[in-house]
Amino acid sequence: MRRRKKPGSKEKLLSHQLYLCEEPEKYKGHWNNCFDEKKPIHVELGIGRGQFITTLAELNPDIHYIGIEIKEEILLKAVEKAETKKLKNIKFLWYDVNKINDIFNQGELSRIYINFCDPWPKKRWEKRRLTHRSFLEKYKYILTENGEIHFKTDNEKLFEFSLNEFSYAGLRLNNITFDLHHGETKDPVTTEYEDKFSAMGMKIYRCEGFKEN
Amino acid sequence: MRRRKKPGSKEKLLSHQLYLCEEPEKYKGHWNNCFDEKKPIHVELGIGRGQFITTLAELNPDIHYIGIEIKEEILLKAVEKAETKKLKNIKFLWYDVNKINDIFNQGELSRIYINFCDPWPKKRWEKRRLTHRSFLEKYKYILTENGEIHFKTDNEKLFEFSLNEFSYAGLRLNNITFDLHHGETKDPVTTEYEDKFSAMGMKIYRCEGFKEN
Repeated sequence: MRRRKKPGSKEKLLSHQLYLCEEPEKYKGHWNNCFDEKKPIHVELGIGRGQFITTLAELNPDIHYIGIEIKEEILLKAVEKAETKKLKNIKFLWYDVNKINDIFNQGELSRIYINFCDPWPKKRWEKRRLTHRSFLEKYKYILTENGEIHFKTDNEKLFEFSLNEFSYAGLRLNNITFDLHHGETKDPVTTEYEDKFSAMGMKIYRCEGFKEN
Repeated sequence: MRRRKKPGSKEKLLSHQLYLCEEPEKYKGHWNNCFDEKKPIHVELGIGRGQFITTLAELNPDIHYIGIEIKEEILLKAVEKAETKKLKNIKFLWYDVNKINDIFNQGELSRIYINFCDPWPKKRWEKRRLTHRSFLEKYKYILTENGEIHFKTDNEKLFEFSLNEFSYAGLRLNNITFDLHHGETKDPVTTEYEDKFSAMGMKIYRCEGFKEN
């Protein structure tokens, strides 16, 4: 059953002016103006409740983080986390990833994170998957040379699909792991969803894709 | 328990002069002389009892096949299969894959098959795996431009390792599948081992790696 929207979420979200960029198209090409100085920019697509990106922002003050989420109610939770942690290197966009090339310029991002995106399991939906080749082409355009995409999922079919798509798009794969929390590659920064499903014994798949020169 | 060698296998194997190349180093750089005309050459490393390569040879008369196997007793079974099928486009080498660059020249092979090789599960053995980067460098050298490596295994850890190694070696991955006999990618030519373990419900992993220009 789809959860009912909490009344007032939108208004609450919009009140967080310090963290929320309301008209992101305006910053296209000069996102560092949003922050106090020039630093590499890392973006997470679909941040959920924000545990992952706010933890990263805490750990890496020399990176600027931008979190994108289309559902205002859960985005509000993420914004509140950033506020509690008094983070200065993070901004949030209430935005649709489909339009990502409207808000970032060529070569503007150093890294993109995609965590536990919707697997859209039916074949006829595959174009909606955030790792479909058409999305990867968009990401490649806005990534710097040697820019990276870091991808995690608990869905084996989506992972298989994504490896093929990364490769098709000419992204060099690296650190492919089929069982992140029981393998050699470590990634101590987790999402809320990952904690829950990993604790239930589900495998977490992960890979990185590099944009080569 | 290791099976005792059948007495006489070596002698029987060596009697199959039509199919066995006894001094393969002599053919380095001109393998097509071994056959009646010039055709692309595909090699399988570790052919076992030969079901896979003899089926391919039957299906594709326009390809020259070379099967390499170090254990004479099982190689004999493969040679007998080729003889029964009266194949004219296949040769067998009783040889150690470690020395593969002693018998093939740069750019001499169009395709290499590696099926269900020993997973050498311990970390300290990883250099022995036939998909280790040091082997992949050897294969890349003897493959033509756009040459391919086709790899199958039932071992998930070996598959994970191999995807990373292919990618590290600069081979573009393609047709990655985690469950060959229940997925979209089809490969109707199987090994004896594959038939047995697939029938038991085990997943067969498969991928291809392309040498790019």
